[in-house]
Amino acid sequence: MGISLDELQLAARNHGMPLEALRYDVTPVGLHYLLVHFDVPAVPADWRLQIAGRVGRELSLSLEELRKRPAVRRIVTMECAGNGRARLEPHVVSQPWLSEAVGTGEWGGVELGALLEEAGVLDGAVEVLFGALDRGIDGGVEQAYERSLPLADALAGEALLAYELNGAPLPPQHGFPLRLVVPGWYGMTSVKWLERITVLDRPFDGYQQAHAYRFRRSEDDEGELLTRMRPRALMVPPGVPDFMTRRRFLAPGRCLLEGRAWSGLASVAAVEVIVDGGSAWTAARLEPPADRAAWSRWTFEWDAEPGEHELACRARDEAGHTQPLEPEWNVGGYANNAVQRVPVTVR
Amino acid sequence: MGISLDELQLAARNHGMPLEALRYDVTPVGLHYLLVHFDVPAVPADWRLQIAGRVGRELSLSLEELRKRPAVRRIVTMECAGNGRARLEPHVVSQPWLSEAVGTGEWGGVELGALLEEAGVLDGAVEVLFGALDRGIDGGVEQAYERSLPLADALAGEALLAYELNGAPLPPQHGFPLRLVVPGWYGMTSVKWLERITVLDRPFDGYQQAHAYRFRRSEDDEGELLTRMRPRALMVPPGVPDFMTRRRFLAPGRCLLEGRAWSGLASVAAVEVIVDGGSAWTAARLEPPADRAAWSRWTFEWDAEPGEHELACRARDEAGHTQPLEPEWNVGGYANNAVQRVPVTVR
Repeated sequence: MGISLDELQLAARNHGMPLEALRYDVTPVGLHYLLVHFDVPAVPADWRLQIAGRVGRELSLSLEELRKRPAVRRIVTMECAGNGRARLEPHVVSQPWLSEAVGTGEWGGVELGALLEEAGVLDGAVEVLFGALDRGIDGGVEQAYERSLPLADALAGEALLAYELNGAPLPPQHGFPLRLVVPGWYGMTSVKWLERITVLDRPFDGYQQAHAYRFRRSEDDEGELLTRMRPRALMVPPGVPDFMTRRRFLAPGRCLLEGRAWSGLASVAAVEVIVDGGSAWTAARLEPPADRAAWSRWTFEWDAEPGEHELACRARDEAGHTQPLEPEWNVGGYANNAVQRVPVTVR
Repeated sequence: MGISLDELQLAARNHGMPLEALRYDVTPVGLHYLLVHFDVPAVPADWRLQIAGRVGRELSLSLEELRKRPAVRRIVTMECAGNGRARLEPHVVSQPWLSEAVGTGEWGGVELGALLEEAGVLDGAVEVLFGALDRGIDGGVEQAYERSLPLADALAGEALLAYELNGAPLPPQHGFPLRLVVPGWYGMTSVKWLERITVLDRPFDGYQQAHAYRFRRSEDDEGELLTRMRPRALMVPPGVPDFMTRRRFLAPGRCLLEGRAWSGLASVAAVEVIVDGGSAWTAARLEPPADRAAWSRWTFEWDAEPGEHELACRARDEAGHTQPLEPEWNVGGYANNAVQRVPVTVR
């Protein structure tokens, strides 16, 4: 691996969740993964959310007006579609995530569906477009960050427009004053610094949908849209780290491995652990999640014997999706949910 | 540049402050730079701060007992001693910071000097050692993170034991339940997850003091201890970024450049800006800091003409320290306060 200056600039700005933070049900602010496409924007004092397009009644709402509507709170696990990218060979150049681009927030706000109902979606609508305040250039195209959601997911789903994270106003870097949160979907869907919602009568073909965030096996492949998170289990690396290599060291004896697992496709059905790449994946103890779209805690008792070991874990969901042993390479470096491997020295 | 897997693991966990956040007087939680040496530790429910060593009366204090003492709040700019490391040639392997390892917090807590007075420092004391909860291996030595401060700086300085950041309890990653904050000094001094304060009658010679955090010109050089922050000015990169390269693009015309400047050695006396590496450094407008150890905002009106440009800024403090045009290489990659250069395309 050799990471370039461009990639380092991204890695120094953005950040993952240190994996020891898997111990928290809800990730404390500042530990949740963060990816900012352009810059954290300056928000105008007269900010309002505009809802327009194929609606019966256009809406223009201040934050205060949004706060007066019925509020919901949902605990949601969110993962970047690029998580695992830096482990792909050949190397894919973009934000170089290893395994840590995840977090779980308690998001508070209003239901997207209720607000769309208030605006009155008209016949012929097929998608809902979310436009953000942050601007920049991506793939040679100057743009505001924009992504759409199929109308059915916007109306019937559990999406919310969040103005709170973990009981406090949204921090600037997570989308203040308002962001979309779409439970179960990869993070690029949950548009931050939301300014415009437009109900469309045709599919959105902007850069972040038609070019980025597609699972493409080759440059010629049109690919498929990335939507819901594939299953993944991660563990808190046991013992203590070496500062530079992050290799783990622990004493022999009983060691309680713990971690979290999630899938955007169905509930987590099982987590399994394997030591030293043997043949026997063994079931971990799985706890129910704190909310429908939140990760599940798992634990596994390991009798650590002196020597060098490799621990690995994998999740399976109720729909039968599981994690591959090796990454599935793709052009954008997305959705790499290959099993986590943690080398450990017991001494 | 080629960043290794080891360095990427650090860069993915730790994070700088995206430079557009220079616009905030006080850095919002989650945007302040963060360097965790080992892991964010799990804090025992029965945590207490122990004060011992060359004192007349040992103290053992709960967080509640600390909160009952007179509280102070200070706005403090803190920078990692390794800021700028990734710009050194030959390459120095460690956390690869570019320019963004800085932040300004409003820290609330008790004065360190007052607490030491309460414990009664005895004759013969020369240093105060701060021991943390986080453990790991560094330079082949298993250790808890520990650093000391000369007694005079601990007693007469403005150091505080902080249990609040920006008006809320310390977040886990910034040292919950208690951390040291030493205004003006590089960040490694401000020990997080503080557990033990020991007044010493001899200088501390542990790893993080005797080996790490020394300015050494060669492997044979014993070097000098790193203490106070050298002056630095940084600007908010103007215009909008390209996602991958972070290159900036803006329209021609009047552009208000803005940024912050600080020095741990003296007050900031001046900030100067230069365009396209000409000979004329021009004074920026400097605003007074919000607190003694807080950064100063500066602004500079630039008439941006079409073309490719390079902007640079530098600070000078009241003691006459300034910033070099080129980095001063050293073994650990510390204290690189060479001027920031921002390439910009005006079109």
